[in-house]
Amino acid sequence: MKFASTVRSLAFAAAAGWLALSAPAQAVAAPQASITHQTAPTQYVDAAGVKLAYRRFGKPGGVPLVMFQHFVGNMDSWDPKITDGFAREREVILFDNAGVAASQGEVPATVEGMAGHAIALIDALNVKQADLLGFSLGSLVAQQVALQRPDLARRVILVGSGPRGGEGMASLTPEFLDMLKKPHDPADELLLDVFFTPSAASQQAGRAFLSRLRARQTQRDPDVNDKVAPAQIAAFAAWGAPRADAAAYLKQIRQPVLVISGSRDLVHYTVNSFTLQQNLPNAQLIIYPDSNHGAIYQYPDLFLAQARLFLNQP
Amino acid sequence: MKFASTVRSLAFAAAAGWLALSAPAQAVAAPQASITHQTAPTQYVDAAGVKLAYRRFGKPGGVPLVMFQHFVGNMDSWDPKITDGFAREREVILFDNAGVAASQGEVPATVEGMAGHAIALIDALNVKQADLLGFSLGSLVAQQVALQRPDLARRVILVGSGPRGGEGMASLTPEFLDMLKKPHDPADELLLDVFFTPSAASQQAGRAFLSRLRARQTQRDPDVNDKVAPAQIAAFAAWGAPRADAAAYLKQIRQPVLVISGSRDLVHYTVNSFTLQQNLPNAQLIIYPDSNHGAIYQYPDLFLAQARLFLNQP
Repeated sequence: MKFASTVRSLAFAAAAGWLALSAPAQAVAAPQASITHQTAPTQYVDAAGVKLAYRRFGKPGGVPLVMFQHFVGNMDSWDPKITDGFAREREVILFDNAGVAASQGEVPATVEGMAGHAIALIDALNVKQADLLGFSLGSLVAQQVALQRPDLARRVILVGSGPRGGEGMASLTPEFLDMLKKPHDPADELLLDVFFTPSAASQQAGRAFLSRLRARQTQRDPDVNDKVAPAQIAAFAAWGAPRADAAAYLKQIRQPVLVISGSRDLVHYTVNSFTLQQNLPNAQLIIYPDSNHGAIYQYPDLFLAQARLFLNQP
Repeated sequence: MKFASTVRSLAFAAAAGWLALSAPAQAVAAPQASITHQTAPTQYVDAAGVKLAYRRFGKPGGVPLVMFQHFVGNMDSWDPKITDGFAREREVILFDNAGVAASQGEVPATVEGMAGHAIALIDALNVKQADLLGFSLGSLVAQQVALQRPDLARRVILVGSGPRGGEGMASLTPEFLDMLKKPHDPADELLLDVFFTPSAASQQAGRAFLSRLRARQTQRDPDVNDKVAPAQIAAFAAWGAPRADAAAYLKQIRQPVLVISGSRDLVHYTVNSFTLQQNLPNAQLIIYPDSNHGAIYQYPDLFLAQARLFLNQP
């Protein structure tokens, strides 16, 4: 399949640069009273035989929020404004799935495989019940965890997501491929195209987001290696392959779900979030204006407020 | 057209009962420290030559919220939990459009005509800028006011709404017609079908809603007369008539808009709210789980919290 090899080379190129956030250190982080996104140490746990990297911080005692990362992303790819926002009232657990960044093992070529590692990690951390927040590829993994382990997954937030067999999900979208082809310098400015719209307001929010992403000074997570993109693309393709009654599995995800999308998501088309809401038994959908795949990074305060309403509902 | 006469007789029958909320007075309202939904007196204003009924209460000083009512509804058809919820931090203005309930004049057979009366009322009250909340038919009128008077309409909340030429909007939907045909005793239990889903949780929320609707003891708004339903149905039909590029007008509504829908809205199909969001330049969409046309009455606390986030955004 010609598509796969084209995408592979593109994705390699993009992935190599995506996380090369070696911006000159402008300031040493000020001493902090408590652990935050910027200071949480990377830790390791043996998860069913695979050493996985994670960071855990925030207010302990309640149900932690486990966050599932996007295509070729690592723990530094989360917006500190959002992770620290959640951490003010709950524990937050970030992690690299198998074979990604600081984690050992092989990247599975299926979402189910990734879900298996994630479940092993949560079990290994002795977390009995968690809320899940999955973004993009991570949202597919979070769906699978919710499906397989209803005892473990209490509530689920799916951002920039879509159902199995969703529209345009059997391959990377043409718009996303065009973004990957376009040169970006510094490389992380790719995210201005992938996560934001061309509007002035969205681009301004994107630049603020990038500066937040670049802020961590110590123990940054390593870039993903060149095996990550092809395996993750294979997982996308298997998930997105059209098939009869592709969305039927959603009826089995009975947890409360909050689905979030940008109004013009060009990575996972917005209509896929509508399809999720319409097929999940208990889902709320929020679509933000003038936004693309990174809608929650464009409206972090609004998203945090709405996510808290959802997570804290009686 | 056979449809029109069938609908007319059905709608007459339904409308006659819809607002017959003459439940036995169970308790006299306790004395209240301040004016609320249940105690706000009906007032009258000359609005460009037509005497219109309104109620105005809540915390004065900011931008008031003007609320646009649904098909054959009057001022008592609003949920006190929602009106009083808003009134805690802003002024709320309820009104009967021309020819409806306590208002004089003729019911216009077009949404534009209804918008003209609403604008006249707001101007007559010397309100220079307002937020608009329109529900169902009222949401069409609110769109038209926002379009015609951008100086007046600051932010807009559209509940159970749809665009011109929307799917299934050229006539009452078959599902809605079936609900109108079914006998209900007491008559206001029609709303359990129209506003809620068959699920136990939704029906329970519906009964709580009905008891809130019935709570006002004094100076209840009169039922609508038999001219209201046919004229309002004509307005629906003109709005919903399919035409080329029917949604193009939405590009001209530049105010921030919050679109709210139930997951299975059988009066204005849920997809119409998605279409609104996708075509309005600056719209957020929220769809609630397991809900029908009265989604905001099923989740009043969540709706209030989200509406406040929207109305109070910087």
